[in-house]
Amino acid sequence: MKLTLKKNAYGKNAVNLSKIIRHANYHEFRQISVNVSLEGDFETAHTLGDNSKILPTDTQKNTVYALAKEHFVDSIENFGLCLANHFVQNNPPVSQATIEITEHPWTRMTFDNEPHHHAYVGGGSEKRTTTIVQTADGITVTSGLKDLLILKTTDSGFEGYIKDQFTTLKETADRILATQCEANWIYTSHDLDFTALFEKIRETLLKTFAHHKSLSVQQTLLAMGSAVLEENDVVNEISLIMPNKHHIPFNLEQFGLDNKNEIFIATDEPFGYITGTVTRE
Amino acid sequence: MKLTLKKNAYGKNAVNLSKIIRHANYHEFRQISVNVSLEGDFETAHTLGDNSKILPTDTQKNTVYALAKEHFVDSIENFGLCLANHFVQNNPPVSQATIEITEHPWTRMTFDNEPHHHAYVGGGSEKRTTTIVQTADGITVTSGLKDLLILKTTDSGFEGYIKDQFTTLKETADRILATQCEANWIYTSHDLDFTALFEKIRETLLKTFAHHKSLSVQQTLLAMGSAVLEENDVVNEISLIMPNKHHIPFNLEQFGLDNKNEIFIATDEPFGYITGTVTRE
Amino acid sequence: MKLTLKKNAYGKNAVNLSKIIRHANYHEFRQISVNVSLEGDFETAHTLGDNSKILPTDTQKNTVYALAKEHFVDSIENFGLCLANHFVQNNPPVSQATIEITEHPWTRMTFDNEPHHHAYVGGGSEKRTTTIVQTADGITVTSGLKDLLILKTTDSGFEGYIKDQFTTLKETADRILATQCEANWIYTSHDLDFTALFEKIRETLLKTFAHHKSLSVQQTLLAMGSAVLEENDVVNEISLIMPNKHHIPFNLEQFGLDNKNEIFIATDEPFGYITGTVTRE
Amino acid sequence: MKLTLKKNAYGKNAVNLSKIIRHANYHEFRQISVNVSLEGDFETAHTLGDNSKILPTDTQKNTVYALAKEHFVDSIENFGLCLANHFVQNNPPVSQATIEITEHPWTRMTFDNEPHHHAYVGGGSEKRTTTIVQTADGITVTSGLKDLLILKTTDSGFEGYIKDQFTTLKETADRILATQCEANWIYTSHDLDFTALFEKIRETLLKTFAHHKSLSVQQTLLAMGSAVLEENDVVNEISLIMPNKHHIPFNLEQFGLDNKNEIFIATDEPFGYITGTVTRE
Repeated sequence: MKLTLKKNAYGKNAVNLSKIIRHANYHEFRQISVNVSLEGDFETAHTLGDNSKILPTDTQKNTVYALAKEHFVDSIENFGLCLANHFVQNNPPVSQATIEITEHPWTRMTFDNEPHHHAYVGGGSEKRTTTIVQTADGITVTSGLKDLLILKTTDSGFEGYIKDQFTTLKETADRILATQCEANWIYTSHDLDFTALFEKIRETLLKTFAHHKSLSVQQTLLAMGSAVLEENDVVNEISLIMPNKHHIPFNLEQFGLDNKNEIFIATDEPFGYITGTVTRE
Repeated sequence: MKLTLKKNAYGKNAVNLSKIIRHANYHEFRQISVNVSLEGDFETAHTLGDNSKILPTDTQKNTVYALAKEHFVDSIENFGLCLANHFVQNNPPVSQATIEITEHPWTRMTFDNEPHHHAYVGGGSEKRTTTIVQTADGITVTSGLKDLLILKTTDSGFEGYIKDQFTTLKETADRILATQCEANWIYTSHDLDFTALFEKIRETLLKTFAHHKSLSVQQTLLAMGSAVLEENDVVNEISLIMPNKHHIPFNLEQFGLDNKNEIFIATDEPFGYITGTVTRE
Repeated sequence: MKLTLKKNAYGKNAVNLSKIIRHANYHEFRQISVNVSLEGDFETAHTLGDNSKILPTDTQKNTVYALAKEHFVDSIENFGLCLANHFVQNNPPVSQATIEITEHPWTRMTFDNEPHHHAYVGGGSEKRTTTIVQTADGITVTSGLKDLLILKTTDSGFEGYIKDQFTTLKETADRILATQCEANWIYTSHDLDFTALFEKIRETLLKTFAHHKSLSVQQTLLAMGSAVLEENDVVNEISLIMPNKHHIPFNLEQFGLDNKNEIFIATDEPFGYITGTVTRE
Repeated sequence: MKLTLKKNAYGKNAVNLSKIIRHANYHEFRQISVNVSLEGDFETAHTLGDNSKILPTDTQKNTVYALAKEHFVDSIENFGLCLANHFVQNNPPVSQATIEITEHPWTRMTFDNEPHHHAYVGGGSEKRTTTIVQTADGITVTSGLKDLLILKTTDSGFEGYIKDQFTTLKETADRILATQCEANWIYTSHDLDFTALFEKIRETLLKTFAHHKSLSVQQTLLAMGSAVLEENDVVNEISLIMPNKHHIPFNLEQFGLDNKNEIFIATDEPFGYITGTVTRE
């Protein structure tokens, strides 16, 4: 039986780039991490060690820095589109280029309601993301966010579930709901105002999470995804990953004290892991 | 246009369990992390908040601890098979159960060539893994390892690649090759001596890596995957992820010193990312 | 020569606690990690295995949760003072109790300029901290912040330094200055409005960083520390840790492009590490 | 009241260096991370932004790579001594140089009992460490290890401790004892066979941990430290940090099952934190 090389890809990950965009009255500071991944006719590199069709990952990295000067001027989506196109157009063996960009948040400092010209605070866990896939057949733009830590102290319950011999969880009509949300949505076009859309979709996700009367993480997830699709014709599909970051009531009764949903053990592991994709039929 | 819930799943991740298996002359210590994920007829949980078909992730966690007593006695594959079967058999709405188990390595201490009865050293990055998927159609066992850090100081080069306007990498016939290897292989059966197979496949991966005259990571990856398939009829397919952990020669020439491939900057980011799957036709 | 047990301590670290404080119109959500460390007359525990003077770390953990109900109502400093006092007063062998508390930031969601009643966003790297040390001689309150990521795109240079045979750094009058700041300041009293002081000191640190014309990290560090002492009589001393998170200009000239301080490699390692303490004479 | 700059220091951290030492029959591969920290007459850098006494941290980094060629040939202690001496001797403003080196473990691959010439496995958490402090008054060599994960499944108990209103822990004569050990010992000289001593002291730590009948972590800690001092005249003092990595029996009784110390929840947080220093009088 013959062996075959199936799916294979190579590229450079974690190309960490920062840029100062110098406006007339202020500096804009941006920081991103770029992953490049190429697929195509690379079989002889694997079978013969023939690198003549291989664009080194070091060159991919250089390309990201070089093209950033002219082309990283607004959204990460537009810069990703430029990179994907560059690799497909200039490298005949490449049948698919995938560009993933993660943007690290930096917020301008403000003093006395005056935004500062060039000083920033960073460090938030939430990151804006995009994945651009370009092939001969077309271009797909998937955008999203990850590591968005959100929590509500009420309007969340979990009741009426299956009980079996290993059930110990107590039903509750009032619990903390917390998640480190990841969302990825697919746009219908690659010519959009991606930054405005991102802000609008993020707001919808937050607002739906905050206002939902949650009977389960699953129900809240569907509500969040549906709201994004309902409000945005340019989004075809959205996937959500909503790990349940448990805050478990601490048993104060053993010390003769009441715990009226006040004191919790904040845990990282184990965690519930709820995922779902909402699409248009 | 109607919205539809597509793929969705829920479960418990990072169920961290340790076990002492008490043998006549010594204690065996095992530590694992288990992820459970269930798919099936859960639409009403999303649409109506009806949890009557939902087995809480807390109960899933309890089940892992409870079944470990009788059923975690040898390989992680066998324990995973037991867990997957339990969730499918006992929960009619479940059409697919996926169990992922990661085993953390512990090595018995040895003094004067005598293995100690009950003391262990842990802490290695390399972990043995398995993923069991059970549906009405059957069971798939995929096993592997991850975070295996391997390095060779020679017998690795990279030459003859594409040069373009952004090329700065110098060709070399002698470089360090280092990777944090992840491998996942699919077995043809779920009734095998998984531990013996794991040890044999791991040895093949290491040996092939060590002895290969590498013209590229891609070529070494294919050699490693092919060797596993050639030596193991019970493996159908193997996927390898081999990030290139670069060790970059430090420019000593600027200080009037030679660097004969001696002194390197060890870097974490950016890193090359090479993946491939080898299968039988 | 006889062996002696010198400094020793024990306690519980990473007691992760969250609390909902229920106000009339909204919920306040707080999340902290508490470390407890006790020193005192514990020699026989070490020498004889006599635990009769040992308060188990598990009990310390329970105590944190139990006292949080009544006593974690405002600043982490006040809760820390309560905990330190509890352990010293109730355990005669304890000569010193040290309580470290780290508070994880949660920000109320706001929609249409209306703060939401019970929904929060978390995930910032910056954390507020305090360390309370109580002995028979008195109480010391040290407060601070850590992992505050701040950056300025200009008004920072580094010139006129020593050159030797290993110098390759180019002098510059205009560079990015970025740091992951940690600050710890010692209060003169333990009866203060700690939260108002924290907000004021944090603002001073940010403002000084933003407005300083920096000739070195050292100079900016001293300016920041001095400003805090000048504006706050209740602070005796401040220590700052300011790792230099380098953003290194990428060499675009090799591709025939200009880099007018626009495109940088964002690096994590290696990093400069600058520390200093400012005090009143 | 005048403000004063007290203790201050600067340097470069995380200088990540790897080296191939080419022996006749095999390659030796070493990987280290170096921190350099300088103290001295740097007040004008802080007060005036006068950098004329400042050796840039970038130059410190270059120096580490440059000196590694000739001087990193055996122990990390000897390389650290060389670096500390270089910085003190060549920079008059420097009154103290502190060099910290962490060595990452790499183990030669072995096939059929034959060590391979140039292939290695890495990835262990345990790291060998040293800190060299050189001043006009002399040189101190402190060596150690960290992140050594050790565990014993029996011969450990914890009984007879204080009970109060917050006690819930049950006494036990048989529990798992696990710790992520850090040890630092001070040598009496800087002219020693540091690698042989390291191996001997590490063996003593492991052996004492394994064979001790532990009545508390405190007692085991003292036994381990004392054994090192008793067996090594060239060690003056040793400090141990032994966090208690709890493995908590899972309550199987609630499901009608016995848990005869078999099934445990492996936890990371919270954790006990026990420290102590043993010295010669």
